[in-house]
Amino acid sequence: MIDSSTGTVLGRRDRKKQQTRSALILAALRLVLERGLEHVTVDDISEAAGVSARTFFNYFAGKDDALIGDHFVDSDDVCARLLSSDPALPLIGALRFAFIPSIERLQAEQDLWFLRMRVICRNPSMMPRLLACGAVAEEAMTRAVAIRTGAGPDSGFPMLVTAVVGAAFRTALIRWALYAGARPLGEFVDEALNSVAGGLAEPAHLAP
Amino acid sequence: MIDSSTGTVLGRRDRKKQQTRSALILAALRLVLERGLEHVTVDDISEAAGVSARTFFNYFAGKDDALIGDHFVDSDDVCARLLSSDPALPLIGALRFAFIPSIERLQAEQDLWFLRMRVICRNPSMMPRLLACGAVAEEAMTRAVAIRTGAGPDSGFPMLVTAVVGAAFRTALIRWALYAGARPLGEFVDEALNSVAGGLAEPAHLAP
Repeated sequence: MIDSSTGTVLGRRDRKKQQTRSALILAALRLVLERGLEHVTVDDISEAAGVSARTFFNYFAGKDDALIGDHFVDSDDVCARLLSSDPALPLIGALRFAFIPSIERLQAEQDLWFLRMRVICRNPSMMPRLLACGAVAEEAMTRAVAIRTGAGPDSGFPMLVTAVVGAAFRTALIRWALYAGARPLGEFVDEALNSVAGGLAEPAHLAP
Repeated sequence: MIDSSTGTVLGRRDRKKQQTRSALILAALRLVLERGLEHVTVDDISEAAGVSARTFFNYFAGKDDALIGDHFVDSDDVCARLLSSDPALPLIGALRFAFIPSIERLQAEQDLWFLRMRVICRNPSMMPRLLACGAVAEEAMTRAVAIRTGAGPDSGFPMLVTAVVGAAFRTALIRWALYAGARPLGEFVDEALNSVAGGLAEPAHLAP
């Protein structure tokens, strides 16, 4: 078994841990989809995954954390790739390159993410948590964009790029889940980033 | 006294209510800035504002709500203005026009917002709540952008525009507060939206 977040081969104990973690996440999402957010407890989730509530808390701080604590991009990895990408690439192209492993990981875990996005759409009070995952990644990415572009500390450009590209990535993720894999996530990300690179010009098929 | 959110003249009772509400928000923000988020209770806030905790709960669902429950744009107003704006305006220009009253309201309450943004920057765990305020507004704005552009139900364009423009607005708000009013909010919003309309091209003064 490969650790989907680091790509390394796991030992037996780590493998077991990752299985328990995934089982808890899936149980939490399925129960919330069935019963609604307010009618699911940590005890329910633990029981459905066949572990004790105490074990649950070895993995997650609480119900919300199990439902949506996973970050959809690994910001350390995105930053490292951004800083090592071809300097001749335009900035948005370099960010697209930096997202490749995150996109592949999301695609590999697509069933979990489709379920997660369905749960969020039915329980809009969870959307802030999805956005929060993005906010944590944004700080590190803003610094990396500043280094790549040579922007000074007073420039608002790196923060703007990071926020805008993060928003574009989030809409791609929502649309990918909405169409439940009819097309790969990478295509939705490309469409969104191309539209951003084009200044959000209205697509030709839309009314002027 | 004018209700800053609707522009209407208030009666004596409403005026008193708005004063109590503002006093509670300011007390909450000042105490959290002094002591940190974890060391401030609803009782502390109520006492500092000279009201009972019961009165506090007439205005707010809890501490977080007092600190950051205000929406930074009034989405009903933004949508109505977007739909009534000159159809010849480019979409981003029309959105800028739609934001005018929200920008004026934020500018009129600048001391409260500078304090709020300082509190958020020192207590990053509050950032999700700021983002959540944006998320509520985004749903209505996505529908309004779809109507204005004539985008069909399968188009991802309205959701993308709303998320990206919302992210740009948020960075403008953060920078305005960071510079504590050295320049009006409208200028920061213009810079951010111009950069988005230009496809996030790197400003000429930055390294290539």
